Amino acid sequence: MTKKIAVILSGCGVYDGSEIQESVITLLRLDQRGCQVQCFAPDVAQKHVINHLNGEEMPESRNVLVESARIARGEVKDIALANADDFDALIVPGGFGAAKNLSSFASDGAACSVNLQVQALAEAFAEARKPVGLICISPALAAKIYGPGVTCTIGTDAETAQAIEKMGGTHQECEVTEIVEDTARKLVSTPAYMSAKTISEAAAGINKLVDRVIELTQA
Amino acid sequence: MTKKIAVILSGCGVYDGSEIQESVITLLRLDQRGCQVQCFAPDVAQKHVINHLNGEEMPESRNVLVESARIARGEVKDIALANADDFDALIVPGGFGAAKNLSSFASDGAACSVNLQVQALAEAFAEARKPVGLICISPALAAKIYGPGVTCTIGTDAETAQAIEKMGGTHQECEVTEIVEDTARKLVSTPAYMSAKTISEAAAGINKLVDRVIELTQA
Repeated sequence: MTKKIAVILSGCGVYDGSEIQESVITLLRLDQRGCQVQCFAPDVAQKHVINHLNGEEMPESRNVLVESARIARGEVKDIALANADDFDALIVPGGFGAAKNLSSFASDGAACSVNLQVQALAEAFAEARKPVGLICISPALAAKIYGPGVTCTIGTDAETAQAIEKMGGTHQECEVTEIVEDTARKLVSTPAYMSAKTISEAAAGINKLVDRVIELTQA
Repeated sequence: MTKKIAVILSGCGVYDGSEIQESVITLLRLDQRGCQVQCFAPDVAQKHVINHLNGEEMPESRNVLVESARIARGEVKDIALANADDFDALIVPGGFGAAKNLSSFASDGAACSVNLQVQALAEAFAEARKPVGLICISPALAAKIYGPGVTCTIGTDAETAQAIEKMGGTHQECEVTEIVEDTARKLVSTPAYMSAKTISEAAAGINKLVDRVIELTQA
């Protein structure tokens, strides 16, 4: 039976939105594995707009849902319309958008808050014991979704790992091409561009994550 | 020996820039095959900015080089700095950016002009008999680069094919998962999202194109 997977995007570009390469690799693997995919994003302003050529902030405002549509070729819906009942699993690619638009982790660290619609949707998957895949910096949200004791990885970055532990999570170091699984919670995470030096390295871990999330929908 | 491949981007988003999925699939395959990749884009304003959620034009101005940096994670250079001598092959992904920012094909059809720096770089590859890969709508530029008699494909779209023929090109119909090769000119093309209904279909043709372009660097 065709598996239905929800993907949460957070804009379009590593420094102020979804990491584009991670998002496309996720969508490609899901499609290659025969899944039906629906992207969602919050209909809110980006925290800011970063010039990806020089790293500087630009005097502009962009909308997370509208920019996410670039990655999804228009096929993205307002996350307010998402219902976990309609899907078998959830995947959240990385990029600073996860830490700036889906949550305030980039500025507030362990004291961060999560966008209420993102929080409600992710919690609904967790409560239904449906598998969730968190990529790159997105596992910083794991403790907010699952509460204390959840195990995840963002690779080897000490500062981020400490913040996760401070929020009640258990951080497990992980190679870029591997995944970490919290079997009790059906949560899978992979470092991707938190550690990757090449797009192939990111793809190796993401492909494993997607494959494992699909497997877990059958468990 | 490591092959060096230049990739021309034209912004970030199918309706006003590079098709993101095609671009990432190209970069992924090149990296998986061990190539060294450098992205380039013209430092010019986009023709316009399209809201990818509703298809409407937005009252904004964005720069092609700056937006291309989103796909390339900052690793993109001004095409004015590109020298064909430094590379073994050239690949141009699709998206309306190729027909709006790299050329005026979207508005002028067979009477289009090509950005002078893009034209000069592509011609230098052609003159050096180095392989070139054109994806999706990019083959609309083939006759401008190679002159009359060049063979290419954009899939099966009759109107675009007619425009290519009017410019002196020879259009060959092609399945989405296949490639067309002009062996005399070492030009490879594939329809990708001119025909693709899924990201996997686009990837199948693009992967073949990348593999063949790499093979041709050794021919």
